[in-house]
Amino acid sequence: MKGALIFIGNELISGAVENTNSVFAGRVLTANGFNIGEIITIPDELKIIVKYLKTLVKKYDFLIISGGLGPTDDDITNLAVSKAFNLKLKENPDFLSAIYSAKEYEFSKNLAKKMALLPESTVPLSKGFSTAGYFLNIKNKLLFFLPGVPHQFKHLLETEVIPMLLKLKVNYKKEIIKTLRFFDLNETDINQFIQNLPKKLISFIKIGYYPVFPEVKLILQTLDKEKLESFIKKLKKHLGIYLLSEEDESLPQVIGNLLKQKKLKIAVAESCTGGLISSLITSVSGSSSYFDRGFITYTPESKVELLGVNPKTIEKFDIVSHEVAIEMAEGVKKKTNVNYALSTTGYAGPTGGTIQNPVGTIYIGFAYENKVKSFRFSFSGERKDIQTLASYTALDILRRYLVYGEGFFSYRFATGIKEKII
Amino acid sequence: MKGALIFIGNELISGAVENTNSVFAGRVLTANGFNIGEIITIPDELKIIVKYLKTLVKKYDFLIISGGLGPTDDDITNLAVSKAFNLKLKENPDFLSAIYSAKEYEFSKNLAKKMALLPESTVPLSKGFSTAGYFLNIKNKLLFFLPGVPHQFKHLLETEVIPMLLKLKVNYKKEIIKTLRFFDLNETDINQFIQNLPKKLISFIKIGYYPVFPEVKLILQTLDKEKLESFIKKLKKHLGIYLLSEEDESLPQVIGNLLKQKKLKIAVAESCTGGLISSLITSVSGSSSYFDRGFITYTPESKVELLGVNPKTIEKFDIVSHEVAIEMAEGVKKKTNVNYALSTTGYAGPTGGTIQNPVGTIYIGFAYENKVKSFRFSFSGERKDIQTLASYTALDILRRYLVYGEGFFSYRFATGIKEKII
Repeated sequence: MKGALIFIGNELISGAVENTNSVFAGRVLTANGFNIGEIITIPDELKIIVKYLKTLVKKYDFLIISGGLGPTDDDITNLAVSKAFNLKLKENPDFLSAIYSAKEYEFSKNLAKKMALLPESTVPLSKGFSTAGYFLNIKNKLLFFLPGVPHQFKHLLETEVIPMLLKLKVNYKKEIIKTLRFFDLNETDINQFIQNLPKKLISFIKIGYYPVFPEVKLILQTLDKEKLESFIKKLKKHLGIYLLSEEDESLPQVIGNLLKQKKLKIAVAESCTGGLISSLITSVSGSSSYFDRGFITYTPESKVELLGVNPKTIEKFDIVSHEVAIEMAEGVKKKTNVNYALSTTGYAGPTGGTIQNPVGTIYIGFAYENKVKSFRFSFSGERKDIQTLASYTALDILRRYLVYGEGFFSYRFATGIKEKII
Repeated sequence: MKGALIFIGNELISGAVENTNSVFAGRVLTANGFNIGEIITIPDELKIIVKYLKTLVKKYDFLIISGGLGPTDDDITNLAVSKAFNLKLKENPDFLSAIYSAKEYEFSKNLAKKMALLPESTVPLSKGFSTAGYFLNIKNKLLFFLPGVPHQFKHLLETEVIPMLLKLKVNYKKEIIKTLRFFDLNETDINQFIQNLPKKLISFIKIGYYPVFPEVKLILQTLDKEKLESFIKKLKKHLGIYLLSEEDESLPQVIGNLLKQKKLKIAVAESCTGGLISSLITSVSGSSSYFDRGFITYTPESKVELLGVNPKTIEKFDIVSHEVAIEMAEGVKKKTNVNYALSTTGYAGPTGGTIQNPVGTIYIGFAYENKVKSFRFSFSGERKDIQTLASYTALDILRRYLVYGEGFFSYRFATGIKEKII
């Protein structure tokens, strides 16, 4: 099955907004085995929207159209659909009452009515029409109209569009889909490993790569359960320590499950990551059962006052050092009753850094049993990338320890290690 | 002058690579007053490339085509140009010797020869053919073929393509683009306000809305500077307190600028937001000059130990209450030397909550001067949405206070307020 994507919006044309929906849709559709023939990005102009709807519906099995479903003046997708396929616009009472009852939509009756004026024979995509978006069958071609708002677009695409498309796939047999998540490997590493495997091991398995920075998803699809199992076994044997989850769980979820199972607790002390580690941990529902507290000690004084870091250590070794990372993690363990403590100190950039420790240098401390280890990392990228890599790496150090114990602490970007017995 | 962009490459279709060239070209062309009629992204397939070259050259004054100029098998743009416009492919000796002499191109003679096989009558874009890329005049339509490699694409676009287009432009005027950001208003609120303005105030201003949850961008484009200024003046008069920035800055950046200017410091105590407020503040480079520290007090004990919250307050009023939010913010101010303290306690869901305070209820404390205020909010959405809304709202309370002083604390989702003098 082959489809095309149409993105509507002046802001996409002018580059005012990055088209993250296009990247997302490309990845998800490709990973699920659908071909995309072309991607069209057009302004909020009736004539050209109508033209492409009419042209592309003839060429493809399905179209995914994003944008122009809102209540504002520049939203004209419904009108374009009505013109392109000769469909009457009718007020959809269910959608209208859903709009009225949604707290977020506290706008005028006129705008609500405009938004609920849908082409006839459309089928809502979200249950109870909780967001805009509908399905339309035009001569057995499948048209999916999705809101341009990224989280709504992505949610509907994953939970409604893909399952509908999969059901209608010709010769559809229930394929097994496994989504594995990796950390500290990039897609080319995984790809290279797989390319060197014997062909028969991977035949009949469709393999898709899908990076969700800084994790990588490997999406496997097959009808052959045994083949899949032996392939995953091979992957685990060679890339096991990088494998976060076979169930598409993110690192914070994996950490959460491990700590909950083992009834263990953690606390953190963050400097350069500025709360991101805590925020990742607490993004998981139920994290209160294993996350005790976090210290965002951004200034040298706060490291001394809250964590008991020795001012002489800072003076002698610098605020960004193995020694400070160690004393931070040690301090957390002393001041709490947790089993594990993580700490970070470093230069996330773009300014700052020293000759010894340029921007991107991050020390991660990890206190466990009677030890504190500090790992030096040299990350690169923008501030946000460096903070994200450091935070995920800190969590992954804990994960590897919980799953494999000591001795599995080698990382791509690691550039040094130091240990202290406490 | 109106043009279209064509991006060629399987990796753009599958989402394996983000199309940063499209965003860049959109911005540069729009800023220089050129209209883009459509953007086409297509795979490395001869038939579809030929089709779009032939179709779009008729519709537009200029085309910018990116990708497919390299030496590998999937690079077929030159072949497509030759087929589309009936041009012979000829080995270009200047280009061939440039390829041989370039250090980056250390590939075989065959590959170099393939790359230098260009359609006749092409004009190189870079001096001495230092990168691929050429210009072609087809019946007075201007076609620019650029390499897909982002830094080469951007360089040639800025230094060669734009100057050539500008020379040919009749009555050239440069459009002004302004991107305003709002918080606590959604796009429909802004649209409704604008719809009720006199038509002459907004004529000749192109208006685009774009939500970047939980902020909203309003993108204004015009040739009329005076009109734009009086329109923005009107917006500020009526929606001023919701306006974060006229320079496309996000709330954490705006807060940062204000605190830096006024040489003021902040610290936070987070419960349900779990580090997200700290993480947002420290996502801004230079935040160490105004962010002192953060306490992620996820457990009741940590609120008592680190912030001095009275256990009796927790017992009497519950951990999620005005009183605890107030004592948290008060505690931060007592234990630090900051000017302002923010605190949060609430139920981010999806589980938890009480009858009085269901999931989505968040208390935000704000300590300033000799006062602490607590605001009760009723947010809805997923855990992540609720944490994000609460964190942005906390930062916005500080922003409104810094810009407008007291008395501007009304919010859409606010459901109560309490004050304590300290």
